[in-house]
Amino acid sequence: MQRLESHACFGGRQEVWSHPSTTLRCDMRFGVYLPPQAEQQACPVLYWLSGLTCSEQNFIAKAGAQRYAAHHGLILVAPDTSPRGEGVADAEGYDLGLGAGFYVNATQAPWSSHYRMYDYVVDELPALVDAHFPSSTARAISGHSMGGHGALVVALRNPGRYRSVSAFAPIVAPSQVPWGEKAFSAYLGADRAAWQAWDASELVSSAAEKLPLLVDQGEDDEFLASQLQPERLQAACTAAGHPLRLRLQPGYDHSYYFIASFIGEHLAHHARALKG
Amino acid sequence: MQRLESHACFGGRQEVWSHPSTTLRCDMRFGVYLPPQAEQQACPVLYWLSGLTCSEQNFIAKAGAQRYAAHHGLILVAPDTSPRGEGVADAEGYDLGLGAGFYVNATQAPWSSHYRMYDYVVDELPALVDAHFPSSTARAISGHSMGGHGALVVALRNPGRYRSVSAFAPIVAPSQVPWGEKAFSAYLGADRAAWQAWDASELVSSAAEKLPLLVDQGEDDEFLASQLQPERLQAACTAAGHPLRLRLQPGYDHSYYFIASFIGEHLAHHARALKG
Repeated sequence: MQRLESHACFGGRQEVWSHPSTTLRCDMRFGVYLPPQAEQQACPVLYWLSGLTCSEQNFIAKAGAQRYAAHHGLILVAPDTSPRGEGVADAEGYDLGLGAGFYVNATQAPWSSHYRMYDYVVDELPALVDAHFPSSTARAISGHSMGGHGALVVALRNPGRYRSVSAFAPIVAPSQVPWGEKAFSAYLGADRAAWQAWDASELVSSAAEKLPLLVDQGEDDEFLASQLQPERLQAACTAAGHPLRLRLQPGYDHSYYFIASFIGEHLAHHARALKG
Repeated sequence: MQRLESHACFGGRQEVWSHPSTTLRCDMRFGVYLPPQAEQQACPVLYWLSGLTCSEQNFIAKAGAQRYAAHHGLILVAPDTSPRGEGVADAEGYDLGLGAGFYVNATQAPWSSHYRMYDYVVDELPALVDAHFPSSTARAISGHSMGGHGALVVALRNPGRYRSVSAFAPIVAPSQVPWGEKAFSAYLGADRAAWQAWDASELVSSAAEKLPLLVDQGEDDEFLASQLQPERLQAACTAAGHPLRLRLQPGYDHSYYFIASFIGEHLAHHARALKG
């Protein structure tokens, strides 16, 4: 573990760390915000999964989440969105390969040797965080777009592990939209049956735990109709009796200005679950 | 005037505009945040001047100021930091030329044909803002580093024009430190007498208006001893009887994490003056 950045921020510290990942077989970076409370006591952790093209930097620089994390006493952990470095496969386009790990475990060559972001986010990263920072065992997860998909899938596949989950403009049905079809075809292969385990709108129908889903979606999001389609998650939740709070936000787009506007409400939501 | 970006943000809109500048003889961009109150009434304007290497993007993406501007009903205007484009002079290094206009009117070739950021910020930009947006005549100014210098100089040279001024980690005595000596030598020439009119620590001694200065400075700022030296402004203000509130913030560095941590207090300070 190597600390690359450390900045005082709202009375706590915003740091960036690098470490060799055994899961991804490359060096990985993540951002961690340590609130002022972490100097005195163990604090709950909110994991944030970012969207396509992002690194560990976007959320920590643009969301303005540290202010609320300092208020609630939450640690924020924001990993990169894919393996990176020499020997890591890539493809043309921003929506496959580097910056586009989709939080799955790839089974197909050439992706399967490095692209195991699901295992990284669920197992390796939390173990690393718990070993190096004053974290309690209370965990929550959230994310944006591809990372909103990741947050929903990670929470739904791991009953009992996260106290709360939320998402901004998530890809709720990757099996049904171009971004997901392209990524899943590459990472998981042509057999669509294998995709279901990575699709939130499929997973809610068999979720062992009815963890309420909080989803914010901008109504002027440029990807709303083509890639996001929150009505698919809504229909699946209705059919399964799974609690969903889907908030359509008039005028908001897909940018970090949207995330910044509502991240405070999401952190309050998570703080209630994490500290309740 | 051409609108390049428009994002819903905290109930208002964050926009980016481009326009041909007659002062700078090139196209210029600026960010403008319109709070929700601007749909109903004229709102006061806070001008923000950014630091070396910045464009109009840094402040609007990283400072998290929109939340507070929405609360107080302030318009935020954030211009670029230099003229840009074909035919605009540049130099090697990040601290002269593009991204480093220093908010002066250059008198020396090749800079004098475009580098007139002072006139742009004081005259052309406010006239443009007032013509196109629902701004009231109440104005305030703030900035960071080179932009903190700019904010102090602009306020001190224009008694009665700004209701309040503040700065984050400003270059308070550019005539006495390497960044300022390099820029002023190029833009203003070798005669140091011509530099005094662009040096806040010189200007306070003859300021016609005792506008209180609010300055936040991180104690772990990597440029504190070499370039910033707030004690020079403090000594000048003490000698002149000019009100200064200099707050040294333990642990904070020169980054936008520092600005984000205290921008709320600065906007509250400006809101009191602008709406009082």
